[in-house]
Amino acid sequence: MLSLIDNPAAIKGLSLDELASLCEEMRGVMIRVVSQNGGHLASSLGAVELIAALHYVFDAPRDKLIFDVGHQAYAHKLLTGRAARFATLRQEGGLSGFLRREESPYDAVNSGHSSVSISAALGLASARDLSGQKHSVVAVIGDGALTGGMALEAVNHAGGLQKNLLVVYNDNRMSISPNVGALSQYLSLKLTTREHIVLRERVKNILERISPSKGSRLIRRFQRAEESLKGFLVSPDAFLAAWGFKYIGPIDGHDLKKLISALNQVKNITRPVLLHVLTTKGKGFTPAENDPLAFHGLGRGKTPPTLSLPPAPAPASSAPAAPGHPGAAPASVSVSGAPPAAAAASVAVPSYTDVFGEFMTEAAGEDEKIAAVTAAMSQGTGLEKFFSRFPERAFDVGIAEQHAVTFAAGLALGGLKPVVAVYSTFLQRSFDQLFHDVALPGIKVVLAVDRAGLVGEDGPTHHGGLDLGYLRMLPNFTVMAPKDEHELKDMLRLCLGLPGPSAVRYPRGPGTGRPRADGPRLEAGRAEIMRRGKELAVLALGPTVWPAWEAAEKLARAGRDVMVVNMRFVKPLDREVVALAARTGKILTVEENSLAGGLHGAVCEAACAMGSDAPLKIRGLGLTDAQVGHAGQGRQRALLGLDAAGVERAALEMLA
Amino acid sequence: MLSLIDNPAAIKGLSLDELASLCEEMRGVMIRVVSQNGGHLASSLGAVELIAALHYVFDAPRDKLIFDVGHQAYAHKLLTGRAARFATLRQEGGLSGFLRREESPYDAVNSGHSSVSISAALGLASARDLSGQKHSVVAVIGDGALTGGMALEAVNHAGGLQKNLLVVYNDNRMSISPNVGALSQYLSLKLTTREHIVLRERVKNILERISPSKGSRLIRRFQRAEESLKGFLVSPDAFLAAWGFKYIGPIDGHDLKKLISALNQVKNITRPVLLHVLTTKGKGFTPAENDPLAFHGLGRGKTPPTLSLPPAPAPASSAPAAPGHPGAAPASVSVSGAPPAAAAASVAVPSYTDVFGEFMTEAAGEDEKIAAVTAAMSQGTGLEKFFSRFPERAFDVGIAEQHAVTFAAGLALGGLKPVVAVYSTFLQRSFDQLFHDVALPGIKVVLAVDRAGLVGEDGPTHHGGLDLGYLRMLPNFTVMAPKDEHELKDMLRLCLGLPGPSAVRYPRGPGTGRPRADGPRLEAGRAEIMRRGKELAVLALGPTVWPAWEAAEKLARAGRDVMVVNMRFVKPLDREVVALAARTGKILTVEENSLAGGLHGAVCEAACAMGSDAPLKIRGLGLTDAQVGHAGQGRQRALLGLDAAGVERAALEMLA
Repeated sequence: MLSLIDNPAAIKGLSLDELASLCEEMRGVMIRVVSQNGGHLASSLGAVELIAALHYVFDAPRDKLIFDVGHQAYAHKLLTGRAARFATLRQEGGLSGFLRREESPYDAVNSGHSSVSISAALGLASARDLSGQKHSVVAVIGDGALTGGMALEAVNHAGGLQKNLLVVYNDNRMSISPNVGALSQYLSLKLTTREHIVLRERVKNILERISPSKGSRLIRRFQRAEESLKGFLVSPDAFLAAWGFKYIGPIDGHDLKKLISALNQVKNITRPVLLHVLTTKGKGFTPAENDPLAFHGLGRGKTPPTLSLPPAPAPASSAPAAPGHPGAAPASVSVSGAPPAAAAASVAVPSYTDVFGEFMTEAAGEDEKIAAVTAAMSQGTGLEKFFSRFPERAFDVGIAEQHAVTFAAGLALGGLKPVVAVYSTFLQRSFDQLFHDVALPGIKVVLAVDRAGLVGEDGPTHHGGLDLGYLRMLPNFTVMAPKDEHELKDMLRLCLGLPGPSAVRYPRGPGTGRPRADGPRLEAGRAEIMRRGKELAVLALGPTVWPAWEAAEKLARAGRDVMVVNMRFVKPLDREVVALAARTGKILTVEENSLAGGLHGAVCEAACAMGSDAPLKIRGLGLTDAQVGHAGQGRQRALLGLDAAGVERAALEMLA
Repeated sequence: MLSLIDNPAAIKGLSLDELASLCEEMRGVMIRVVSQNGGHLASSLGAVELIAALHYVFDAPRDKLIFDVGHQAYAHKLLTGRAARFATLRQEGGLSGFLRREESPYDAVNSGHSSVSISAALGLASARDLSGQKHSVVAVIGDGALTGGMALEAVNHAGGLQKNLLVVYNDNRMSISPNVGALSQYLSLKLTTREHIVLRERVKNILERISPSKGSRLIRRFQRAEESLKGFLVSPDAFLAAWGFKYIGPIDGHDLKKLISALNQVKNITRPVLLHVLTTKGKGFTPAENDPLAFHGLGRGKTPPTLSLPPAPAPASSAPAAPGHPGAAPASVSVSGAPPAAAAASVAVPSYTDVFGEFMTEAAGEDEKIAAVTAAMSQGTGLEKFFSRFPERAFDVGIAEQHAVTFAAGLALGGLKPVVAVYSTFLQRSFDQLFHDVALPGIKVVLAVDRAGLVGEDGPTHHGGLDLGYLRMLPNFTVMAPKDEHELKDMLRLCLGLPGPSAVRYPRGPGTGRPRADGPRLEAGRAEIMRRGKELAVLALGPTVWPAWEAAEKLARAGRDVMVVNMRFVKPLDREVVALAARTGKILTVEENSLAGGLHGAVCEAACAMGSDAPLKIRGLGLTDAQVGHAGQGRQRALLGLDAAGVERAALEMLA
């Protein structure tokens, strides 16, 4: 049926039964394509009926549908003329895993980061009213994203402005084990419209440890948890009303009839409405329903759970996603034949994330002052074990990166040694807190900056391409990147011994798999000269170091004499090594960061400040303003010349 | 009496009457010192009894008292051994206008930016519990600051963790005109613990236009306003309970007996408590009570209202603040003899802020698509006139910089031309939104970045020293700074004509007062060569351009041949001009921004990339990691060599 839907107007004539069939068909397509390409399966499976109902009732693109994050919106892609290309999801040249105005006029706003949808929707609604237009504006936001301070700011502002605005609160309740469904239901009804992940997780942790036979113990523990929840007895209506919103719900987010009826009802209300929709993450795919966390993001640096295709739904008419089938993606750039980095990691080489997690558990066993802080990413940052072994020192603050950083500063002021584990792209949210609450007062907070550099299929919104630059600007900070997984551990240990704030940034995906290399002991502000040479100096950082070394070895075999340095630190920068490198007259910097302000910027500043007695040219390999689209991580690195071949090519150009 | 109080324990033996006298004495000291030195008078006057009661009941520094922003905490300074030095407030070498651990062990956390206190307090409380300590942790936060998303994130997290934590909600209700006190009271009772500034402002606007005689019309209008407020009928108790907090209040924040009794009560509650305290901004000083906005910050680039000393309280024993009296500040660096920049501005030269405000009103009159967005700074950014003339296109979102930027992106997507006016230091809060919602999708949002560079007495937390660096990293952005107030207007007009996002950054304080200079028409990415020269090139930006030109003129009279360029843009950078400058072999960059990543970084990157045929040295004048403490703006510029004398000195050193 999907092949007949080339725009959302085409579903308006369908019966409810036909619409339900279409939803099942879309589920089948998603499961097959994501099992092949990776992606956000559980969230998108949970929002199928909601999205179908939204397109059934509203008239996109005239009506603006804005999906927070965008990872739940695969059904939106399938219903807006992109079904035939859906097999190219997250592949180079194919569909993005998020939403982009460049990709479709039905994507009202570009998305990727959490908690922005209500702000954007309110802006659109305000502009609509000023220009006398009449369409609807709808923001769809999950329970996690609504805890971001930015979303709460927008709710506040919307309640004040009283615009015609619909916020669909997609509450997927994290799927507590089925035998406690009633409790889960109770909680989700009471804990609406506020941050309840922390509490839910607490209940979940309790329940997970208890078998059904231990019923009385279960109840006792739950009563205790409930005691601390007594505050939640205010009704959702009153609570939301206090924010200036009309509250409607909760309604079953998988019941098309109820959804359509509710949406038709709210469509005619001309003030802010919050429609509370209960959905099940992973709906319709049992493995994902049972373990939505594992299926939240696939191919994201964690070993994906074994995926077996679901019991044969009718084959979708879109391109079948057999292994290696390029679908609509240009064959020349297909990366589907290459094993994903994460899969490679699961075989033998631990990911940087795993190494970090292991280090933290070890270190915390030795030093009871060490604490871990994360913003709804305890799994993604490798801290599960830490969280289960040291729950009293483990803080998941929800999607609230700003808060995470200042909270950690508070922990440090109280005598702890907090390590904040966060993805580079999301740490951007904390820039001012890093400046004001950590750097300026010189508080000892350690940042473990995961997913720094190119991230692969998640694309531009998720590249961690700015952290070297923005961290290097901050006073008192020590900023570093390890050349491999061994150095990561050394650096984390160094950070814990430094008096002030520090950051270690490391990439998504597997480590190098290399044995620990001999080399000078790690020392703050000192680079490691890996190879001496007189014709050209390659100053590399992080995951580009070994490729640079390989390139130099190859060049040496061709008779060229190239120096290679593992810079280790961008702040403080090793000026002596830069001076040494400048003597060659040619410097090539190599980094997985924006050249502007990154290692390249730091090296240029240092070289210019010391001044050259002789001509000097410095070229940089790294990220530029031209964004690297979604593709395999290896392919992205190759595109920017950050692999051994690229470094060799650039070096030869400079030597020519 | 104050002279006898050298630490807060000394007030514990006082009777309530004595404590009340002490409060009046502190008011007198504040008014006299702020009338001399500038500062945050209204907020600090409003919190005198609250702070006295806190120190009366709690035992600082064992108990941690954390003041959000810190601008309300002058009484805290006076009671914690700093009374004798209080006359040095905001003067170089004297007391900071905010709170700093370096200044006093009673300052639990450094402060300056809004909305961070609950996060820091929660961190301290968590660390306390982990180490088995027992002290209290208290955050004091105002109604404005609580609207920042970060504060809401912290409230959420605190409600989940159920730590022993006291949040004192200092609700100063913006002082609606006295004859509607009952209504104001009603609102403040109902609109607790959420963003009500917008709604209050609406009610205020209505009431302000109505004379007391038009009573029935007043009531009718208010009823209509109340209709849209019907949501607020939920009680504060229930609302706060939903966040996991116990609510107590509201109590009169100027009644010492009630305050002390309430604090003693909550001191023994071991879970999160929000104590709602009603205070009057400017309390005890009639001009400030009547116009708290005007007295919020004095000497901050706006013409201060005429200050006459209050009717003689007993002279404080702290150093009298007669003009020119150095107090405890080293006489050699005292700046009190110099007229403040703002005062100078009020005589003849409009401030950059004023010029921006004037431009916006003009431009909005010509183009109905132009909208203004600000985050609780409509006055500080010069937009009052715009807000009163074009209320439907004027958006004050409260203290919510993150939201402001994405909201503006929404306006732009809806067809408007939004201009976001914000201080540089607070724009740091929006870094991720600038990246994700503006730069990456290339949305046409104009940023008017006020208070860029050195800000004077507010000191390090308020310097706008990073924006050139962090804006330059963002794709699609055009980033510029005017050499004077005339170029500011040209640049704003240019921005409105650009297809993508752009930023103009300009300093706090008066323009140059120069007449409009002849020169090449403003063109994106093109610098202005102001003076040719062969021995050295000075590449300057913003308010450093004219001083650089003056220095070169003086050097010319001494026979030295120095090139001077007004760079205008850091992105795109004028590479041709950098190449021309490099031919001299010596480049001096001059900017009011961090050298790392700023104009200096951009010029070094460009020079290194093109490579030099001959030796080249580039030196930079600008901000470094060594923070420039609070002092007069002129003095701060001189310290960094950003005035004509400093440029001349640096140029001579390079020429030597």
